[in-house]
Amino acid sequence: MARSKPPVVGVDLGGTKIITGVFAHDGTMLSRIYCLTLGEEGPARVIERIKASIDQAIDKAGLQRNQIGGICVAAPGPIDTNRGLIIQAPNLPRWRNIPLPALIAEDFKLPAFLVNDADAAALGEHSYGAGRGIGNLIYITVSTGIGGGMIINGELYNGIDGCAAEIGHMIIMIDGPICKCGRRGCFEALASGTAIGRMARERVALGEKSIVFDLAGCILENIRSETVAEAARKGDLLALDVVHAAARYLGIGLANLVNLMNPQMIIIGGGVSKMGAMLMGPARKSMKEHAFKLPMSTVHIVKPALGTDAGLIGAAEYVLHKRMIV
Amino acid sequence: MARSKPPVVGVDLGGTKIITGVFAHDGTMLSRIYCLTLGEEGPARVIERIKASIDQAIDKAGLQRNQIGGICVAAPGPIDTNRGLIIQAPNLPRWRNIPLPALIAEDFKLPAFLVNDADAAALGEHSYGAGRGIGNLIYITVSTGIGGGMIINGELYNGIDGCAAEIGHMIIMIDGPICKCGRRGCFEALASGTAIGRMARERVALGEKSIVFDLAGCILENIRSETVAEAARKGDLLALDVVHAAARYLGIGLANLVNLMNPQMIIIGGGVSKMGAMLMGPARKSMKEHAFKLPMSTVHIVKPALGTDAGLIGAAEYVLHKRMIV
Repeated sequence: MARSKPPVVGVDLGGTKIITGVFAHDGTMLSRIYCLTLGEEGPARVIERIKASIDQAIDKAGLQRNQIGGICVAAPGPIDTNRGLIIQAPNLPRWRNIPLPALIAEDFKLPAFLVNDADAAALGEHSYGAGRGIGNLIYITVSTGIGGGMIINGELYNGIDGCAAEIGHMIIMIDGPICKCGRRGCFEALASGTAIGRMARERVALGEKSIVFDLAGCILENIRSETVAEAARKGDLLALDVVHAAARYLGIGLANLVNLMNPQMIIIGGGVSKMGAMLMGPARKSMKEHAFKLPMSTVHIVKPALGTDAGLIGAAEYVLHKRMIV
Repeated sequence: MARSKPPVVGVDLGGTKIITGVFAHDGTMLSRIYCLTLGEEGPARVIERIKASIDQAIDKAGLQRNQIGGICVAAPGPIDTNRGLIIQAPNLPRWRNIPLPALIAEDFKLPAFLVNDADAAALGEHSYGAGRGIGNLIYITVSTGIGGGMIINGELYNGIDGCAAEIGHMIIMIDGPICKCGRRGCFEALASGTAIGRMARERVALGEKSIVFDLAGCILENIRSETVAEAARKGDLLALDVVHAAARYLGIGLANLVNLMNPQMIIIGGGVSKMGAMLMGPARKSMKEHAFKLPMSTVHIVKPALGTDAGLIGAAEYVLHKRMIV
């Protein structure tokens, strides 16, 4: 009798939460465990929680460790996929050059991998979501930052070191506003939630009138992209203007991707993209103005289909891809 | 006895010259024909010259039309590779939606293809030049404009419509100087030969002193990138400053490519790149400042190895690729 293909474990490690799932080879979710990251407790405690959540997920699926084919953790970049190192994690204090897959592999005696969270989401959406059957697509997440993943010729493309698709750090405005990466004029510094909050705060600080300030409880620091979105929905002119500016920048970044990659599809996810037509309408207009006609006429701009589980599903899928190659 | 693989024809159609070559399957050049484009005579006459040069090249190789496996023309973008249309050609007046491969195929009764000239150069350098054995590379040509081609996983990547890698029209300075494509702040409008000439003219027109003006025969319009390069080599401060500005922009565009694609190699060709260390020294410095450490530590920046024949060789190679797939 042929030995059936073993299930795999996907872990989505975020700044707030760790989601862990066991998946059968056809993508069926066999179990799902949710726990808080509590990153402020430092890497050692978080790694213990990751390991515990993997064990719980395996147990919940009615399986044993030795019945699992492999484990993959999707983590926020920058990571070194080849060497399996989390070089740094923006929302996880004190994570520096941590060989997470090696630590997991040693403990579980199983193959373990690391993948960028946006790459994992791209792979998830390509395998089971909005991008099924689409050979060339770009996934982009617009939230606090901007991240991305690319599927080229039906495969995840993540470059020689596994760190490609750093879409958020494409410079689109030389000498523009400062980015959290330390450079200026990055896509992320202009079109992310962080950028929307900053643009509104700057204008309110200069004395412009807006209900944004009231919605933030009259505390400048509390003005965030969510506050701006709420004010814009109420027709506030400053908020609408800021959303339009971000949409224009978003369209330009997307146009750059269209001109460079001529993809069949761009999937736009992330919290900020949920502003809907208010943001995406002017973003599409700007994109059309800045992209060439032929690739623009081809590309489909769509929403993700998998929601918050895209990274988790993609991480599990990554194990299958890696194990097929190995 | 197995029928040996037939030779193929590559044509490099430029604004100034048409170069045509017949190649054996191992890349050996069997013949090479050079003729002037004389684009001002219009498309019909140029197409006749292309056809005549193909016949001459076949004849010079001691072959007949029916011994040829296929023909490919490398042409300046924008082109529609799938439909075989030259949509427009910047340096060829009145070329609009011309189905060049169909016209050649009909006449020669042979498979005929169309490829972007920078894509062809990328393929040529990958197959027989500086990029041999390199699976993931970007070829970029910096001359009057900026063009590019990408090899991904050992294959030419040119997107869904065959118009990917429009590197020159990646916007890197929103609201920056106008580009010949009509948009503002394109990479090409900041780091090409055209940009270098324009930056020098603008400053001379504002009254800045420079030998650039004298070298151009005291005619502002005659200041070109070559004039600026000559003046910079003589130590002219304005010229050196303009070259440094272009180098900084070049480095930022290259950094964007490194952050997006994490390639193993970038091959930089084109007339402007021949300025050498004067341009490439500060360009590398700027690139290092704007790219992430890991992908920057991996990428090799090299010169092309095939010279002006890269496009021709790549066009011939494109026939072999297409015929293998078909």
